[in-house]
Amino acid sequence: MTITITAFERSPDRGRGLARDMRVRWALEEVGQPYDVRLLSFKAMKEPAHLALHPFGQIPTYEEGDLALFESGAIVFHIAERHPGLLPDDANARARAITWMFAALNTVEPPIFDRDLATILERDQPWYEQRLRTLDDSIRNRLGSLSRRLGDAEWLDGAFSAGDLLMVTVLRRSQRAGMLAEFPNLAAYVARGEARPAYKRAFDAQLAVFTAAST
Amino acid sequence: MTITITAFERSPDRGRGLARDMRVRWALEEVGQPYDVRLLSFKAMKEPAHLALHPFGQIPTYEEGDLALFESGAIVFHIAERHPGLLPDDANARARAITWMFAALNTVEPPIFDRDLATILERDQPWYEQRLRTLDDSIRNRLGSLSRRLGDAEWLDGAFSAGDLLMVTVLRRSQRAGMLAEFPNLAAYVARGEARPAYKRAFDAQLAVFTAAST
Repeated sequence: MTITITAFERSPDRGRGLARDMRVRWALEEVGQPYDVRLLSFKAMKEPAHLALHPFGQIPTYEEGDLALFESGAIVFHIAERHPGLLPDDANARARAITWMFAALNTVEPPIFDRDLATILERDQPWYEQRLRTLDDSIRNRLGSLSRRLGDAEWLDGAFSAGDLLMVTVLRRSQRAGMLAEFPNLAAYVARGEARPAYKRAFDAQLAVFTAAST
Repeated sequence: MTITITAFERSPDRGRGLARDMRVRWALEEVGQPYDVRLLSFKAMKEPAHLALHPFGQIPTYEEGDLALFESGAIVFHIAERHPGLLPDDANARARAITWMFAALNTVEPPIFDRDLATILERDQPWYEQRLRTLDDSIRNRLGSLSRRLGDAEWLDGAFSAGDLLMVTVLRRSQRAGMLAEFPNLAAYVARGEARPAYKRAFDAQLAVFTAAST
């Protein structure tokens, strides 16, 4: 059954692989599933046809036969559940890998995402500098906890899992804030993720979309 | 096997059921699993014994035999996967219910949580009113999308699921902002959640902890 995902026609990150379709592409590459991509303009994302798929008018979505999903975390989980390679077989290890998926999206990502948003939306506000400092403290706090837990392990809990996949994509978004360099083990962890062949294939595929849209 | 969760010794919400242990208590009540609660002071949450369980030093955690989990979303999912009642049997419906779990935590909760935090941390800032308006717009935007999708349905996708459980707890946090009243179908949806016997038992249990700590 053909898998179709949606992505930005022209990603605001200019092809740096920070948009959320990257997570889904990477997961599909890890498990060796081919997929089609339907590109959307910002206008099309807010139109009824797309809102029927994604109530919040965002990307990515995932369609496979009569199944339609949204939310990158849920899509990555669906892929991980259907195909071997992204979740351990052992029940307890599997539950812990899922814990890292939620931790990436619900605990680590929010302040990182807020900072990205603030640099766009609040740049001219009187509170901008102070707000950045607050967000940076909050990000640093999260990264510090994560760094202590990771220690010198290769991945967060045993073998590479969907939890690592999401965490690496979340940490990549913090690179713009320049804080990852303060935590060398996290920087190395992100580099290990980026070195995976599946990551590279996914990254190249999303970059090709941006390059094509820019010529 | 005994299930033990952690919760605030004295919840900052003063027993209104907004702390994240409420989600786990509610899920356990829905599936009829008894549990023990270990109460933690703010100090104990940052000590090595608790950090070994929860790398970010928060509540709740979940222990069952040799399994230890953190992140309320992951814990609710674990409970929903192990016991009938919180996820549909049909594979596609199950994937959609999981999508709503991620949507509650990764799309709807962040601006609501930010607003709560701003009312504590930024109350004395000169920009406070303007910042609240920005956050309110962002929350209103999410609630509007959710309200349109829910329409006059009882729950988000067929029968009550772990997705509804998380979404109701997230929406309850927005009540303080007073915005839920602008979306009568969401207010009714939250009321339906709060009317469930399992919700009531969970709510009473967390309130009893606060009441006992205050006398």
